[in-house]
Amino acid sequence: MANKEHTDPVRMEKIVSLCKRRGFIFQAGELYGGLNGCWDYGPLGAELKRNLKDYWWRKTVQERDDVLGMDGAILTMKQVLKSSGHLDGFSDPMSDCLLSKARLRADQIPPQDGTAVWYSGARHEASAWSTDKAFAVLVPAGKDADSAKKTARQFYGSFMPDKKVSPKELELIEDKREELTGTTRFNPENGSLLTEPRDFNLMFKTTMGASADENDPNAVAFLRPETAQSIFVQYKNILDSNRVKLPFGIAQVGKSFRNEINPRNYTFRSREFEQMEIEYFCRPEDGLRLTDEWLESRLCFYEEIGIPREKLHILDVPDGERAFYSMKTYDIEYEFPFGIQELEGVAYRTDYDLGVHQTGSGRPLEYFDEETKERFLPHVVEPSAGCDRTVLAMICEAFDEETLTDEKGKEDVRTVLRFAPRMAPIKVGIFPLLKKNEEQVRLCREIQKTLQPWMTVFYDDGGAVGRRYRRQDEVGTPFCITVDFDTIGENGPEHQGTVTIRHRDSMEQERLPIDGLLSWLLDRIR
Amino acid sequence: MANKEHTDPVRMEKIVSLCKRRGFIFQAGELYGGLNGCWDYGPLGAELKRNLKDYWWRKTVQERDDVLGMDGAILTMKQVLKSSGHLDGFSDPMSDCLLSKARLRADQIPPQDGTAVWYSGARHEASAWSTDKAFAVLVPAGKDADSAKKTARQFYGSFMPDKKVSPKELELIEDKREELTGTTRFNPENGSLLTEPRDFNLMFKTTMGASADENDPNAVAFLRPETAQSIFVQYKNILDSNRVKLPFGIAQVGKSFRNEINPRNYTFRSREFEQMEIEYFCRPEDGLRLTDEWLESRLCFYEEIGIPREKLHILDVPDGERAFYSMKTYDIEYEFPFGIQELEGVAYRTDYDLGVHQTGSGRPLEYFDEETKERFLPHVVEPSAGCDRTVLAMICEAFDEETLTDEKGKEDVRTVLRFAPRMAPIKVGIFPLLKKNEEQVRLCREIQKTLQPWMTVFYDDGGAVGRRYRRQDEVGTPFCITVDFDTIGENGPEHQGTVTIRHRDSMEQERLPIDGLLSWLLDRIR
Repeated sequence: MANKEHTDPVRMEKIVSLCKRRGFIFQAGELYGGLNGCWDYGPLGAELKRNLKDYWWRKTVQERDDVLGMDGAILTMKQVLKSSGHLDGFSDPMSDCLLSKARLRADQIPPQDGTAVWYSGARHEASAWSTDKAFAVLVPAGKDADSAKKTARQFYGSFMPDKKVSPKELELIEDKREELTGTTRFNPENGSLLTEPRDFNLMFKTTMGASADENDPNAVAFLRPETAQSIFVQYKNILDSNRVKLPFGIAQVGKSFRNEINPRNYTFRSREFEQMEIEYFCRPEDGLRLTDEWLESRLCFYEEIGIPREKLHILDVPDGERAFYSMKTYDIEYEFPFGIQELEGVAYRTDYDLGVHQTGSGRPLEYFDEETKERFLPHVVEPSAGCDRTVLAMICEAFDEETLTDEKGKEDVRTVLRFAPRMAPIKVGIFPLLKKNEEQVRLCREIQKTLQPWMTVFYDDGGAVGRRYRRQDEVGTPFCITVDFDTIGENGPEHQGTVTIRHRDSMEQERLPIDGLLSWLLDRIR
Repeated sequence: MANKEHTDPVRMEKIVSLCKRRGFIFQAGELYGGLNGCWDYGPLGAELKRNLKDYWWRKTVQERDDVLGMDGAILTMKQVLKSSGHLDGFSDPMSDCLLSKARLRADQIPPQDGTAVWYSGARHEASAWSTDKAFAVLVPAGKDADSAKKTARQFYGSFMPDKKVSPKELELIEDKREELTGTTRFNPENGSLLTEPRDFNLMFKTTMGASADENDPNAVAFLRPETAQSIFVQYKNILDSNRVKLPFGIAQVGKSFRNEINPRNYTFRSREFEQMEIEYFCRPEDGLRLTDEWLESRLCFYEEIGIPREKLHILDVPDGERAFYSMKTYDIEYEFPFGIQELEGVAYRTDYDLGVHQTGSGRPLEYFDEETKERFLPHVVEPSAGCDRTVLAMICEAFDEETLTDEKGKEDVRTVLRFAPRMAPIKVGIFPLLKKNEEQVRLCREIQKTLQPWMTVFYDDGGAVGRRYRRQDEVGTPFCITVDFDTIGENGPEHQGTVTIRHRDSMEQERLPIDGLLSWLLDRIR
């Protein structure tokens, strides 16, 4: 639910610019003009996203006894999506513009404004369209009202010889817009008439196999619109191949695809995106309680990755706004610079999903409880998080511009990404104070080799150390190590074998022995 | 290059069965009859694949200063694939069967056998087809030659009134098959005529966006047939946002899609698959040397993940068999139970890729060498590995059946997956000797909590310890820890605080102090 009051487009613009400049995110196919709604992660973005997915997997699958992982195919059978309801129900109402051929979401078209019919700036020649309920004329921009009406009447005469819309009604367009445009819609971009809305499925369709007959229904496959369906479809196989008892979950991270008509807000609403989903199967009587428990567990997760609870909003979706089968749904929303938007939904979906797949496949999906000897369809609680939007939330939350004042009162702005250390793409920068000092360089490389199997390390010997710190601040590196003359014992034995550790957030420095570096860092980055 | 001499279908069948039974791999959409050429990884398969991808990333990106990672979109612009040559050239020659509508790879159809035309067992009524070069009749199975010929002549009369193929030629079908069937092809399945081969593009196509016009070329997108193209397309952005110098690489792991006509050999040749690709950019004069270096580096990698060098075959692809732009290509092949098949290609692709994208996009992609002041297109060496086939190779290599003989001479077969410990889906099993002993259970859970942030741990208290070991052997768990009465001090202080570690491969056991477990295990699993 976008909340215009909280938007900060200037901040957002700075974030987008930093992300491109430092190689977090690029538009897909940018070299060729770009593919709308698709994004490529550059070196730092790819690391950040990996950290998020890995931490989610570790907390959700690895550190829990009751959740198993899986990794399913993106290509999905038509029958699966027929059962799930996506084939028939996963659509938006769309209207086509008769002039530009653009397709618009009918429920997002702003209130009708009949003036557009008359005076909007048509990019081409004057032209006219009609439906049963309206007659409309587009007149090139700049014409005055009188000559526009004259043109309109000329068109009227030639386009509507059967006078379905009478001249009197034609006049009404100006005077009583709303009456005339009751169910008629106009494209706010060019004032052209729009067709009646019809449902437009959001799934990407493709054909597969070698069938010579392109209309062969078995040759149709879809890109999955969510990872959840393969969990339901494999639920029985996973139950049978693992000795698990209710309650238990199946978790998956992976790409999903939706042909969003209007991708927007940077990577937030894109056509290709990654999800982190859990389907947690349970006894019916435990569903509501587990939904609340998962909500709490997911809120803790966001805190652990650096998104504080006070920036999250929990929407308890009211009756009538939830999916019909859901007995409880929480939306976890974050205050993005472009408004408050959903990161994750925690939904109690009852036995809807297993039920439709049992019916659709004709195969029993019931669970047999060894202790109570009952046979029933488990209910399911689904915490479903958006990976790309969480990455974006982490970047937005981390972005900071700090005004520093030096001893002489000179002001300077420090750009810093204050990532939680466990999420930072680069964990540690390592610098020789003097790039020409062989001993310093040798020691740096030695430390780098020790740390690299455990974390991402960035070696930099270019320019003044202060500038190197700033470059790392800008990409969110929490710690920088400098090997200096103290380290190599040139200033006496006192600090020999120690290095400077500089903290990104406080900019404070401390000295640590080289021997203890790995465990000191591991304690802080995991 | 499949080598029939090495095949072992019985072994392969056992592997496939184990993979399903223990939850490594399921067919996608199996509940609904299955989606050909697509696979879902179950809990253990997903972990195994994660371990492979993570280790590749660690060795390729994290531990190297000269390789950057990226993570690009799957949906790909038509223009990108036009430039790369995939749109026009990425195709197989296909022939359609006139009877069954099946589409066959023309270059894989076995030598023509004209008898099929006459006597094969048509599943339906007798029927006839003709092309410019041949007239063919299918006669239901079981008819004798004379009555078949009679039927054929009847058909001939009604189907070929213009006598393009003379009765004499009709006779020739039997006598001089090869002459007649020169370019005519028959479906070996049913003896029906096939159409002339035509090119069939292997890419999956979809439409995106809201264009009302389905023929709008901008509305067409493809699923990427390889991850490499997004690396080339983002090469300039990555170069500009990172201070890198030649030689440097860009690495990517991710899904790719090819509409294989005939997916086969389990997960080996599938329509949806994951790749691990590096594009290593260099000066032209270094290309050949670096190709050899990368080959060596990749061979080491396979050893590190448990695929010994002696099971790998290196094919130095000869002139005339390489892509026309490649100056050197090595195929790294593994001895699968279904034959020797490629795991990875290491190809020196010269400046072909950057060249076609520079031309296609009209944007300069040259590299400026600060030192020599030269401007040129870098050359590229591409180590491109298949992730799913490497997973399959690891499973095939690990699978073992060991016949054990107990003291009484009784034989027993132990099934064991001898994964390299760093690849094993479960690193350690943890068992209380007696599930009802509270102290043993408490200690197990304590150890589990200590280990779980660092590795996958499986707790099991079901059945005799020997059976628990065997269950872990079957999924390749390298170590099992048992907490017993010694551990809790009930047999005196000597072994208190120590546990039994049982080794999967040797089945030997040793005692270790609980305190040292984490570092003992970390040394062996990373």
